[in-house]
Amino acid sequence: MSKDLNPDLNWLDALNFNDDGLIAAIAQDIDSGVVLMQAWMNRESLQLTLETGKAVYWSRSRQKLWRKGEESGHEQLVRALRTDCDGDAVLLLVEQQGGIACHTGRQSCFFYSLIGEQWHAVEPVLRDPKEMYQ
Amino acid sequence: MSKDLNPDLNWLDALNFNDDGLIAAIAQDIDSGVVLMQAWMNRESLQLTLETGKAVYWSRSRQKLWRKGEESGHEQLVRALRTDCDGDAVLLLVEQQGGIACHTGRQSCFFYSLIGEQWHAVEPVLRDPKEMYQ
Repeated sequence: MSKDLNPDLNWLDALNFNDDGLIAAIAQDIDSGVVLMQAWMNRESLQLTLETGKAVYWSRSRQKLWRKGEESGHEQLVRALRTDCDGDAVLLLVEQQGGIACHTGRQSCFFYSLIGEQWHAVEPVLRDPKEMYQ
Repeated sequence: MSKDLNPDLNWLDALNFNDDGLIAAIAQDIDSGVVLMQAWMNRESLQLTLETGKAVYWSRSRQKLWRKGEESGHEQLVRALRTDCDGDAVLLLVEQQGGIACHTGRQSCFFYSLIGEQWHAVEPVLRDPKEMYQ
């Protein structure tokens, strides 16, 4: 078990970032409860998320801030921000614009379900990705 | 965006583990939809989870397998396993035994809510941790 979070600290200082300065971030749809995606945030993206009220992640592959929905329009309006007992993950309760979080056009990125020993896509594509990223 | 998951592979080979051989794991209560915790898994813990039907994580702080609930009795019965578009996180849909996932005696580890610029514990303690870890 990691060290428990110290709630007396400023919110950003209280969090336990990893060696890359990142913290795991989970986005959950505040209405349906569906877990939409898991991504990463750094201090700057957390600060921007709080300031703008919209989810801003850190893209590890592109090594830059990722304003969710800036291309697709599928922004996430952040209604509440939570962290866990040891402060090494954050949970964003969001209103998902367009009802689509995934770049494949599905509601959630967690659309693969394990059946036997293989992953099967079990959620419908709601919008053609080609249309989302013109 | 990372590389998309290849569903033709065996489920463990299809996942994208990090440099430490780990993958982020989110446990969600299958009945209430509450996000209970975020932890880490390696290949062995995933395999054991599938075999036993109970969540087995990898404890980074103790560097060993962590059979969730082995001390507290608060096991997680895994009803479904999901992964995301790029296969770098898994979502466990679980029946949480005792209704408590957190070592603080709360239902969820995500019991801190951001109010102003500080974290506040907003969920009740359901069971005295001293009683859980005798």
